[in-house]
Amino acid sequence: MTGDAARVSSLGTPALLVDSQAFEHNLSVMAAALPGPRLRPHVKAHKCTAIARRQARAGHASFTCATVREIEQMAAAGLGDDLLLANEVVDARRLSPVLAAGARVTVAVDSEPTIEAAARAGVPEVLIDVNVGLPRCGCAPEDAGRLADRARARGLRVRGVMGYEGHAMALTDREKRVRVVEESMRKLLDAHGRTGGTVISAGGTGSYDINPFATEIQAGSYVLMDTAYAKLDLPFRQALCVLATVVSVSPGYAVADCGLKALGMDHGNPSIEGAQVWFCSDEHITFKPERPVRAGDRIRVLPAHVDPTVAYHERMHLVAGDDVLETWPVDLRGW
Amino acid sequence: MTGDAARVSSLGTPALLVDSQAFEHNLSVMAAALPGPRLRPHVKAHKCTAIARRQARAGHASFTCATVREIEQMAAAGLGDDLLLANEVVDARRLSPVLAAGARVTVAVDSEPTIEAAARAGVPEVLIDVNVGLPRCGCAPEDAGRLADRARARGLRVRGVMGYEGHAMALTDREKRVRVVEESMRKLLDAHGRTGGTVISAGGTGSYDINPFATEIQAGSYVLMDTAYAKLDLPFRQALCVLATVVSVSPGYAVADCGLKALGMDHGNPSIEGAQVWFCSDEHITFKPERPVRAGDRIRVLPAHVDPTVAYHERMHLVAGDDVLETWPVDLRGW
Repeated sequence: MTGDAARVSSLGTPALLVDSQAFEHNLSVMAAALPGPRLRPHVKAHKCTAIARRQARAGHASFTCATVREIEQMAAAGLGDDLLLANEVVDARRLSPVLAAGARVTVAVDSEPTIEAAARAGVPEVLIDVNVGLPRCGCAPEDAGRLADRARARGLRVRGVMGYEGHAMALTDREKRVRVVEESMRKLLDAHGRTGGTVISAGGTGSYDINPFATEIQAGSYVLMDTAYAKLDLPFRQALCVLATVVSVSPGYAVADCGLKALGMDHGNPSIEGAQVWFCSDEHITFKPERPVRAGDRIRVLPAHVDPTVAYHERMHLVAGDDVLETWPVDLRGW
Repeated sequence: MTGDAARVSSLGTPALLVDSQAFEHNLSVMAAALPGPRLRPHVKAHKCTAIARRQARAGHASFTCATVREIEQMAAAGLGDDLLLANEVVDARRLSPVLAAGARVTVAVDSEPTIEAAARAGVPEVLIDVNVGLPRCGCAPEDAGRLADRARARGLRVRGVMGYEGHAMALTDREKRVRVVEESMRKLLDAHGRTGGTVISAGGTGSYDINPFATEIQAGSYVLMDTAYAKLDLPFRQALCVLATVVSVSPGYAVADCGLKALGMDHGNPSIEGAQVWFCSDEHITFKPERPVRAGDRIRVLPAHVDPTVAYHERMHLVAGDDVLETWPVDLRGW
């Protein structure tokens, strides 16, 4: 049964597949563009320590996390050399045992309560999180110096600043994207002038090659990709899909077993090559195929947004043709 | 610490909360309207055997499932008196051990391959799944007799028909909903005339009181509810919310830790009472509160669609005020 279990064609569905060629391509293109610590891979996109380990082997030993759970599990997996919680928390107590076990953890702070939380949990290092144009977390650039002083007064080491230009990521017009990234980074550099420190952390897959202002880029999606990022002019290949089985065929359309609980839907419907997607239900995708399909046929569904797609799945499979090379637990899910 | 852990105010966030008053209200209103086997609760909405057990105690001993995993786990939890897999599968082998362990399992079939899959797995009973207007699974009504004959020829017992009028569920105009339900059920009754059997299974939360044609109703959302169903004129109360913590406050808006990985987004943004939701990111919700909030404040986020929201969470908490009465694993997730 081992041979049987190692075939894509015998996997239960829905199943997350990672195409090994595209995956290796994405790893190496990024490692060449942003070698070593120039990239601080964001694990929120893949939520998988096995992939993080591959990124570490490609030279990137420092990581970005979005949740305390991600920090805990990355450290437990031996990937705790330099973990950044690029997110605000008002209760950081769960980080204390992670630090005690020897991991290096830095947290983002943008207010006195978040500085207090870090200090109380014994987190020694922080980045001042700066709002560079996306209405989310982060202080005003002109407030960064005051917060850095406050953090230092509480005994924290200020490593520098962080600011995510998320409002630039989806701009398909490259010139406009370049312009918005630069405007955003001017704010971050202004803040950095007020805080000091050596780190200027920013960016993502959509700005990895047009953000020379940051000392490190927090890209995550590049390694698996999705159809939203595929609209940009990026050299990364779609490595992730959801394998599904056609379970019902009617005149003019068919239905496969990949629905709303297997797909992040905030960016809209997924895609199927050679088919038009009509809609998704909880456990189904209804689509119009260009060529006839039969119950039992396998199809590949390309998610519109990688992060919330991966978060639904327990595992993903690295595949080459019909071979399952490795099966990885999605072990950074939850909170 | 037991006392501390049993307070809502000390739960880590994001966390799924179930308001016990609303939950009990929903259970009892439904049990009065559709007592005993008139309701075959759909577990896909809550994915939680603890809730299924409460539904069984309210008199409903037969259940609807959407996945093989749901069947397996419901049977393992001792809730296998009469489980319907209301979904097509072309590989039913995992049902064999469930049957061998004593559960009663019926599967929906709409084609020869799905009949073959049931027969090969030793599943003894089927419903003929009929397309009543929603472009998803189900055969044409006029094909139901042929498939029933085919199933019987393969040694299967045909318990009757099933047909989900999902295209009627979201119609806020009650008269129109009544009309579409009736049109759909005419098709199902026509099919039933061709198949025989005692079961006519259909319906959902949006049609539970306007579908007198079916012998049993497959409602699931009623017990937890969401903001989409709240737009209908139903007597069920919003029992489910996601508890979140404000982590960042800026002039004009605030950010809490409940994002795309904690919310089903296919029905659009969630809601927050006393606030306007701007957008959700992977781990954040950005909103404009009517009154000032501070970092550390708790808010309650009301999901637009219950099913894909619950599927992201490991557990949910039954609460009354600040008391956590019970904590339930969401143990029917995955496939």
